[in-house]
Amino acid sequence: MHSFKELVEIFSEKFNASHFPAQPATLYEPGNYFLNIGGKRIRPAACLMGNELFGEIHPNAYDVATAIELFHNFTLMHDDIMDKATLRRGQPTVHTKYNESTALLTGDVMMIVAYEYLARLDKNFLPRILQLFNKTAREVCEGQQLDMDFEQRNNVSLTEYIRMIELKTSVLLAASLQTGAILGGASEGNCHHVYEFGRNLGIAFQVQDDYLDAFGDPEKFGKEPGGDIRQNKKTFLLLHALEVADTPRKEKLLRLMQENPAGKVQQVLSIFRECNVDEWARNLKQQYLNQAHHHLEAVAVTSKRKIHLAQLADFLVAREH
Amino acid sequence: MHSFKELVEIFSEKFNASHFPAQPATLYEPGNYFLNIGGKRIRPAACLMGNELFGEIHPNAYDVATAIELFHNFTLMHDDIMDKATLRRGQPTVHTKYNESTALLTGDVMMIVAYEYLARLDKNFLPRILQLFNKTAREVCEGQQLDMDFEQRNNVSLTEYIRMIELKTSVLLAASLQTGAILGGASEGNCHHVYEFGRNLGIAFQVQDDYLDAFGDPEKFGKEPGGDIRQNKKTFLLLHALEVADTPRKEKLLRLMQENPAGKVQQVLSIFRECNVDEWARNLKQQYLNQAHHHLEAVAVTSKRKIHLAQLADFLVAREH
Repeated sequence: MHSFKELVEIFSEKFNASHFPAQPATLYEPGNYFLNIGGKRIRPAACLMGNELFGEIHPNAYDVATAIELFHNFTLMHDDIMDKATLRRGQPTVHTKYNESTALLTGDVMMIVAYEYLARLDKNFLPRILQLFNKTAREVCEGQQLDMDFEQRNNVSLTEYIRMIELKTSVLLAASLQTGAILGGASEGNCHHVYEFGRNLGIAFQVQDDYLDAFGDPEKFGKEPGGDIRQNKKTFLLLHALEVADTPRKEKLLRLMQENPAGKVQQVLSIFRECNVDEWARNLKQQYLNQAHHHLEAVAVTSKRKIHLAQLADFLVAREH
Repeated sequence: MHSFKELVEIFSEKFNASHFPAQPATLYEPGNYFLNIGGKRIRPAACLMGNELFGEIHPNAYDVATAIELFHNFTLMHDDIMDKATLRRGQPTVHTKYNESTALLTGDVMMIVAYEYLARLDKNFLPRILQLFNKTAREVCEGQQLDMDFEQRNNVSLTEYIRMIELKTSVLLAASLQTGAILGGASEGNCHHVYEFGRNLGIAFQVQDDYLDAFGDPEKFGKEPGGDIRQNKKTFLLLHALEVADTPRKEKLLRLMQENPAGKVQQVLSIFRECNVDEWARNLKQQYLNQAHHHLEAVAVTSKRKIHLAQLADFLVAREH
C-alpha cells in the first residue's frame, strides 16, 4: 500500500508521457502545454487509493486514472473559456496563449482521448466503469452550468449552492475513488461507502477553499485573501451570511457588493465575523469531514487498509493553502 | 430490409424523444432546440443500413445510431462557434440564440450523452464499437483543426484538402456503416469493405457539394451558387484550378480573391470553365463513387442485400441540391 504522496508520484511518472499524436500539432501541442503546467493529480491518486483499499493495484487502474485526469483537464480548459480566465496555475490559459477555437477543440479531443483510455479496460470492468464515468461527466457539466446560472441570480440558497458544489467538484472525486474500488473487486455496498466518502470529502474541501479565501493566513495561503469577496463570488460564507444576518447587516452587505467601495474586503469580513460565519464554516467543514470518515469506517476491509485515505481526508481539509 | 428513406423515418421516430433530463433547463433546453431544427439523419440511417447488410436490425443499432447522431450534432454546435456561423439549417445557431458558453457546455454534455448510449451496448460489442467510435471522433476533431489551419494558408495542396475532407466528414459516414456491420456480425474483411465504401462515398459527396456550390442550377440548388467563391473558400474546384491554370489565369484568380470586385463569381466561374474544372470535378466524383461501388461489390453477401446501399450512393452523389 502507498501513501497519497507516493501514488501521486507513481501516477505522475506514467502520466508525463504525451497522450496525443504529433499531428496536427496545432491541435495537440496546446493539449501537451496544458497538461505540462501541472496540477495536484488528486483525482487519479484517489482512483489508485480506492483500488488499494481492496488489494494490489490493478493494471487498468492507471488507464482509468489517466482518463479521469484528462477529463478533469478538459473541463478546466473549457471552464477557462467560459470564465474568461487568463491564468491557470500561474500560466496563461490555452485560449489566452492560443485562441478560443483552439481551447475549444483541444478540449474536445482531450475528452475523446480520455475515452480512448477507458476503451482499454478489461471487458468485465468496462460497462460498469464507463457508466459511472459518463454519469459523473454529465454531472460535472451540470454543476458548471448551475455555477454560471447562479452568477446571474441574487436569490441562491445555501442548499442550491451545496448541490452545485457537489456536482461541479465532489462527484468526480467520489467517482475516482469508486472506479478504483470497482477494479479492486469491491461489493456494491463497499462501492457506495467509498463514493460517499469522496462526495462528503469533496464538499468539506470546498468549504475549506471558501474559508481560506476569506480567512486564510496570507503567508500560508500564498496570496492576499478576499479574492472571492472582491469578485462578489457566491461562497458558503456569503450565502450563509445573507441567510443569518440581521436586516441592517444584510443591507450593508448588499450595498458593499453593489458599490464595491475601497476597504470592501475588510468591511465584509467584519460582518462575516459578527455573524460568526467563520466558526459556522469550520463546523460545517467538520460535519462533512465526519460524514466522510463515517463512510470510510463502514467500508468492510481491515482498518489498516484505510489509514492512507483517512490521512488524506484530514490533510485535504486541514490544509492552509 | 428497408430503403434509406424508410430507415431515416424509423430512426427519426425514435430519435425525436428527448435525450436529456429536464434540469438544469439552461443546459439541456438548448440541446433539444438544436436537435429539433432537424437534419438529414444520414449517418444513423447508414448505421442501420450497414447492419441490415448482414441481417435483421440488432436492437443495439438504435443506440449506436443515436450516439452517432448526437456526436455529429455536438461537432456542429462547436463548429458553429469556431466558424462564427449565425444560421444552421435556416435557424439561429445555439451560440447566437443563447450564448457561446451555452453552446460550448451544451455541446460537451451532448457528447457525453452520446457515450451514455454506447454504454448500453452488449458487453460483446462494446469494446470494438467504442474503439472505432473514439478513433473516428478524434479524427473528426483533427479534420476540423486542419480546416481551420488551411484557412490561414495559401499553399494548400489538393492532396491535403482531400485528407482534411476525409477526416472531417468521410470517416464518420464510414464508421457509421461499419458499426452497423459489426452489430450484424460481419467479418473483419467485410467490415473493411463497408468502411471503405463509406469513406469513398463521403469524399464523392463532398466533391458534389463543392461542385453544386459553383455550378448548381439555382432553381434546384435552392440558393444562388457561388457562396464558396464569394468567401474565397478552399474547395476541390479552387485548389485544382490553382494547380492547373496557366500563369495569367492563376494570377487573375489570386487577384480576384484578394480584391473581391463586383462580378467576381462570374469571372472565377469563367476561369474554372476555361480550365475544365467542372468536367474534372465530375470525373473525380465518379472515380470516388466507382471506388465506393467496388468496395460494396467486394462485401461477401448476396447482391440483393446491397441494393439499398448502392441506390443510396448514387442518390447522394447525383443529387442536385
